[in-house]
Amino acid sequence: MSTKKLARNDNRLSVMALGGVFEIGKNMYVVQYGDDLVVIDCGSKFPDESLLGVDLIIPDISYLQEHKDKVRALVITHGHEDHIGAIPYVLKQLNMPVYASRLTLGLIRGKLKEHHLKQTVLHEIRADSLIPLGELTLSFFRTNHSIPDCLGVVIDTPEGKVVHTGDFKFDLSPANGQFPDIHRMANIGQEGVLLLLSESTNAERPGFTPSERMVGERIEEAFHRAEHKVFLTTFASNVNRVQQVIDAAQKTNRKLLLLGRSMINVVKVARELGYLNMPEDMVVEAKEAADLPRNRVAVLCTGSQGEPVAALARLASSTHPLSSIEPGDTVIFASSPIPGNERNVASTLDHLYLLGADVIHGGHTSSGMHVSGHGSQEELKLMLTLMKPKYFVPIHGEYRMLHQHRILAQAVGVDRDRIYIMRNGDVLDLAGGEAVQSRQVAAGNTLVDGLGIGDVGVAVLRDRKHLSEDGILVIVITLSRQDNILLSGPDVITRGFVYIKESEGLLSEVVRLATVTIETLQQSGNDWKWSHLKSNIRETVGKFLYAKTRRRPMILPIIIDV
Amino acid sequence: MSTKKLARNDNRLSVMALGGVFEIGKNMYVVQYGDDLVVIDCGSKFPDESLLGVDLIIPDISYLQEHKDKVRALVITHGHEDHIGAIPYVLKQLNMPVYASRLTLGLIRGKLKEHHLKQTVLHEIRADSLIPLGELTLSFFRTNHSIPDCLGVVIDTPEGKVVHTGDFKFDLSPANGQFPDIHRMANIGQEGVLLLLSESTNAERPGFTPSERMVGERIEEAFHRAEHKVFLTTFASNVNRVQQVIDAAQKTNRKLLLLGRSMINVVKVARELGYLNMPEDMVVEAKEAADLPRNRVAVLCTGSQGEPVAALARLASSTHPLSSIEPGDTVIFASSPIPGNERNVASTLDHLYLLGADVIHGGHTSSGMHVSGHGSQEELKLMLTLMKPKYFVPIHGEYRMLHQHRILAQAVGVDRDRIYIMRNGDVLDLAGGEAVQSRQVAAGNTLVDGLGIGDVGVAVLRDRKHLSEDGILVIVITLSRQDNILLSGPDVITRGFVYIKESEGLLSEVVRLATVTIETLQQSGNDWKWSHLKSNIRETVGKFLYAKTRRRPMILPIIIDV
Repeated sequence: MSTKKLARNDNRLSVMALGGVFEIGKNMYVVQYGDDLVVIDCGSKFPDESLLGVDLIIPDISYLQEHKDKVRALVITHGHEDHIGAIPYVLKQLNMPVYASRLTLGLIRGKLKEHHLKQTVLHEIRADSLIPLGELTLSFFRTNHSIPDCLGVVIDTPEGKVVHTGDFKFDLSPANGQFPDIHRMANIGQEGVLLLLSESTNAERPGFTPSERMVGERIEEAFHRAEHKVFLTTFASNVNRVQQVIDAAQKTNRKLLLLGRSMINVVKVARELGYLNMPEDMVVEAKEAADLPRNRVAVLCTGSQGEPVAALARLASSTHPLSSIEPGDTVIFASSPIPGNERNVASTLDHLYLLGADVIHGGHTSSGMHVSGHGSQEELKLMLTLMKPKYFVPIHGEYRMLHQHRILAQAVGVDRDRIYIMRNGDVLDLAGGEAVQSRQVAAGNTLVDGLGIGDVGVAVLRDRKHLSEDGILVIVITLSRQDNILLSGPDVITRGFVYIKESEGLLSEVVRLATVTIETLQQSGNDWKWSHLKSNIRETVGKFLYAKTRRRPMILPIIIDV
Repeated sequence: MSTKKLARNDNRLSVMALGGVFEIGKNMYVVQYGDDLVVIDCGSKFPDESLLGVDLIIPDISYLQEHKDKVRALVITHGHEDHIGAIPYVLKQLNMPVYASRLTLGLIRGKLKEHHLKQTVLHEIRADSLIPLGELTLSFFRTNHSIPDCLGVVIDTPEGKVVHTGDFKFDLSPANGQFPDIHRMANIGQEGVLLLLSESTNAERPGFTPSERMVGERIEEAFHRAEHKVFLTTFASNVNRVQQVIDAAQKTNRKLLLLGRSMINVVKVARELGYLNMPEDMVVEAKEAADLPRNRVAVLCTGSQGEPVAALARLASSTHPLSSIEPGDTVIFASSPIPGNERNVASTLDHLYLLGADVIHGGHTSSGMHVSGHGSQEELKLMLTLMKPKYFVPIHGEYRMLHQHRILAQAVGVDRDRIYIMRNGDVLDLAGGEAVQSRQVAAGNTLVDGLGIGDVGVAVLRDRKHLSEDGILVIVITLSRQDNILLSGPDVITRGFVYIKESEGLLSEVVRLATVTIETLQQSGNDWKWSHLKSNIRETVGKFLYAKTRRRPMILPIIIDV
């Protein structure tokens, strides 16, 4: 078959990331052979504070739009936001059939419904599915992670096998009985892997990530010790941990109250699809929980990252309408702060201590209440050893993680010159067993703000930044078009600059300076332009305000001709 | 003496924090007896991202201004920003004589010079100084911290001794030979302490903080191992660590290049005052460093927190004009990220790895390149044991730290009902050996923005937040005053909302809606008010834009009457 293909025009295998490398988040990888193209994952990323007003970052999919006739499938490895969060926004730009496992599809369905996307074709896949798509054939292998139903993806191509691990750890005693299929991975490796794409999140962390079961034991101990109400917060999507919380509640004879939209939603989906095992009457409503003795209730809630609007922060500030924390209650953070969230978590902790709660969190010493969903160095080496790839591309990580993953790969015998660290948009072409990395395609951040996908760019963000720091000063001048006579103004309106009531002197001086500027130009004859007036006012007023306040508000002169 | 005083009107001792509790930063404590008042420390705090455009937060000193006749001294415990950062801003509002140790005064002088404050009287104090101020007498004791010349303060009052620890650890083998004066502390405790104020930063950390000397050993080892240029970043004010870097450079035959304004400044001050010991020709200029072999140069620079404008971040992005990092160079972070700075540090790390540097940082496993300047739990217990206070107020920390410090104090025998956790502004009154906490004075955050002290308030910040998220839309309408005829407009100008070139349709619809709103009101007769026009336009246009974009720009209708 491959000799026949060699005669074709575009008979090479190309692999690229449109998101997910040199960053954590917005994962999207592309495997293409000739006219057949498969997309793996479609994630979003949260903006940092420099992207003012931006809700979400998604991958730039220009490359897919240019090759839309070739796109055979969007395959999703698991249901975390950095793998599914961009789906509704991307599908609005380019419809693709979506392939995912049962729970993952359940979570995707919720998103599509929210965005009124009804046309998308969804295919459920299982660990033993085999899906031919033109020249490509997809198969899968079971992995573990902090959400059930995770799959690694094998793409058979005329050039050889490409393996994408998805996110994984090797939890050899998983809480939900979904064991990592090491035998299948060994078989894939024995059949021969041309290229491995493996995730790098914990490439800097030595050792082997502990089993999720350990967390279950700690949770159960804490539930036994707790004399009053127990509040526990974790990522809603960590269904296995949620199951362990349910088990601990059951063993200590507590009913479960769920607080927080995503917690309620994920538990609902997971329960409907059979991923959560609990008695019918386990989950109670707030009213019922309020009538139970405090030591008969456990509250499972969102807010483990200290998000100010999530359930836990509202409980901590005593503003949650449905429940309250009282002295002696136990609050468990079954989580650790994601970099950037430390301050919000600390603030939530402070409020909880103030309420007199016994707080168990991962702060300075490990509480054992959280384990990572990502494999540490020994697990990354195990995956590399099982797969024995000819070529290796570390994915899913910031540069230092990819860099460290390369060192690990070398340690298990992969040649350094067969390891490619790629940026988003870099293309690895493989033909006749040889790999070349020399091309780029378009890749980058598409910003989502409200309903707008990509309409907030550098200029808008620069203005928002300017406005956020020093506010705005609008100067309106009404002139007679014919004779250049000042009819009204200058009127000065300001927002976000100074406290207006205490700045009357400052603002009347602005009016005076603008008036003088107009008069000076008027006296200079009739050939002056309005653009001069605007720039002169901007300069004069700007200089004055900076000298007086060391601030540079945006100055917006508006000239009205009547 | 005390019987005589009991006859006086206001014969109680009052102690309060104007900043520093329920927060980390802006330390300011007040000890007052009758007509004599002493202020301890005058620190600033950096704003979090919600305080848009704010440069600095300082304490509200209304209480001091109301009692300015009684203020005898501003005593500074050490030269860190959270203890001296507000001095120039506070002295502009209220002049006070400043008492501080030699190095601390050196750093304060620089600040006063920068702010052109020439009138302040500065008094140098030593560990054995004795300063009578009315009914109060100040004495001091030597402590260790991550800056030399730290002092604890003892205030003798007619009611008894108040002790303020300043920031401290018990480094029993300090790098600079300034040993903590444990015998003096023991004596103070034996003489009897009425009230101890002790810092709580590391109250959650078990054990005993390692000696600064350990860091020196790690630095020296790394310098010996390094084959090329070494870059080391740490807080400039950590003069003892800077000395250890100098020593390591000397032992490995390297010259020192200093990069970053605060590093150059602190080294200059510390050297002039005799706190740094090095040969005359140790520090070289950039040009000289460039001519030396790379293994003969060490660069000591700012930027340990990943600050985007500091020297290290510019070196990492290859944009520093004076030096560059090449493959094989060693970069040492002798620091750990302060909560909130994790992302910036991670980004700097990534750039350094990309340059091919060998990076030593505290990331996942401890590098031994940093130790805290604050005592851990056993040291806090040691201080409490030495001082044997009758009353205890934990200071300098967020609530959970104060809370934990209270538990430590109980563990060493302080009665729980003699421990007061106070908020900023809470007053502890002590009279006849009895303590009462029932009063409050004004206390809070004063925001510094440029030259403005306190002129940016809630309303301005709310506007900045609004502007930062969705921008502004200005609608200008010119009407004839007499007959309510529309003379010009509506003109629409927008910034920070949408990319204008791609939004012409949207904005022309805004013009149409505003026009319709005006016409509707005009037709309703002559008794409509312009305020109606503004609010109607705001509502109509706001609804339309939200439906179309899910954004809510600030809408600013401006009506000009001609």
